[in-house]
Amino acid sequence: MKPAVPRAIVFDVFGTVVDWHSSIVRELVRTGLAVDARAFAEAWRAGYPPAMDEVRRGVLPWTTVDGLHRRILDRLLAKRGLVLPEVQAAELNRIWHRLDAWPDSVAGLTRMKARWPIATLSNGNLSMLVDMARHASLPWDAVLSAELFGHYKPDPEVYLGAARLLDVAPADLLMVAAHPSDLRAAAACGLRTAYVARPAEHGPGGPVAPWADGEFDFAARDLVDLARQLEHAAG
Amino acid sequence: MKPAVPRAIVFDVFGTVVDWHSSIVRELVRTGLAVDARAFAEAWRAGYPPAMDEVRRGVLPWTTVDGLHRRILDRLLAKRGLVLPEVQAAELNRIWHRLDAWPDSVAGLTRMKARWPIATLSNGNLSMLVDMARHASLPWDAVLSAELFGHYKPDPEVYLGAARLLDVAPADLLMVAAHPSDLRAAAACGLRTAYVARPAEHGPGGPVAPWADGEFDFAARDLVDLARQLEHAAG
Repeated sequence: MKPAVPRAIVFDVFGTVVDWHSSIVRELVRTGLAVDARAFAEAWRAGYPPAMDEVRRGVLPWTTVDGLHRRILDRLLAKRGLVLPEVQAAELNRIWHRLDAWPDSVAGLTRMKARWPIATLSNGNLSMLVDMARHASLPWDAVLSAELFGHYKPDPEVYLGAARLLDVAPADLLMVAAHPSDLRAAAACGLRTAYVARPAEHGPGGPVAPWADGEFDFAARDLVDLARQLEHAAG
Repeated sequence: MKPAVPRAIVFDVFGTVVDWHSSIVRELVRTGLAVDARAFAEAWRAGYPPAMDEVRRGVLPWTTVDGLHRRILDRLLAKRGLVLPEVQAAELNRIWHRLDAWPDSVAGLTRMKARWPIATLSNGNLSMLVDMARHASLPWDAVLSAELFGHYKPDPEVYLGAARLLDVAPADLLMVAAHPSDLRAAAACGLRTAYVARPAEHGPGGPVAPWADGEFDFAARDLVDLARQLEHAAG
């Protein structure tokens, strides 16, 4: 099947556009906190899907990712017997607002933006995504967040809400992510899908979720490669 | 009173950042439609506050500005005995997606963006604001729209919703507009206010709404002047 050319493109952000792992490890080291930075970063990130699930099941009321990150951070610190003054804990939690882009992200996004509207479609709250875009010079046309829909990915409200706000049919919207589960949920809503390989998302040699050859409309080595493939498909 | 320095800035768009009047007149002339372009543009725009009011009073369900513009357009055409094929009417309605910026807008926004997050806060729907930003090279950090809140300005939900999404207190958010009524509603929600003079919004010699000296935190000749005043206040 020849992949259809989209009318707009939305992107997962954490892991797909920005390198959370090495950014968080680096910033943790910088704080001088007496923790194994790599293990702490992984535990912080690992606490995030179950926390979103608590929101999804109604155990927690709607809570932003900033709020969820803070709950997880407080538990991780407590488990290690660490107590931080409120100002320092709040500042530590904002590490997630200044993650660095992967080396290809700005060039790839800029090329795609020349032909298509590009937007985030992330579970991160809007202010976090805005700060991150300013920090990493990400040239979004719009910042779309789960926060706008009161639902976290992979809930269908997020994918369908993005299509509605961008005023395109789901089949005309391309979802880009490094995570097969995100793309499968998007495809179930009728969106097009593009997989981007990020083998170092969890650090060098870290785990990568499996996916089947031909499962997605596009599969790219990085965002510059995806831009090239989309330009080729558009002719 | 020394004006407080904001943490983020939001902007009205129609009339404040883009010159809807001359853009619409020019595009109407280009269509070759047998109408008085200037009168038609004014009537089209004049139909918009009452249409939003129908939404506010629940006479109409939530309808985007694209939808409201189309209702008004159909009535204006019918009144003149004009019938357009659907494709042409839909295309005509999208004139509002490609309005030109005032000459100072891009320079002023770029200067403010260097120090503060800048976002739209417009009644226009999100896809319209995205198209307009791409057309006129407006460098928004985020595109916020009444559509995200299910309320039109001057309803408080819009101003308070913007502060919530940008994660700043209302008093740390600066609303910029060429319309005193918009600024008064923002101030009633606790936002800071900046008036920008746009004497030609309705064409040369057109009406300008009155306001009192000292009524707003800032009053500027244009967006470059506002950038200068804000930089000065921030020191």
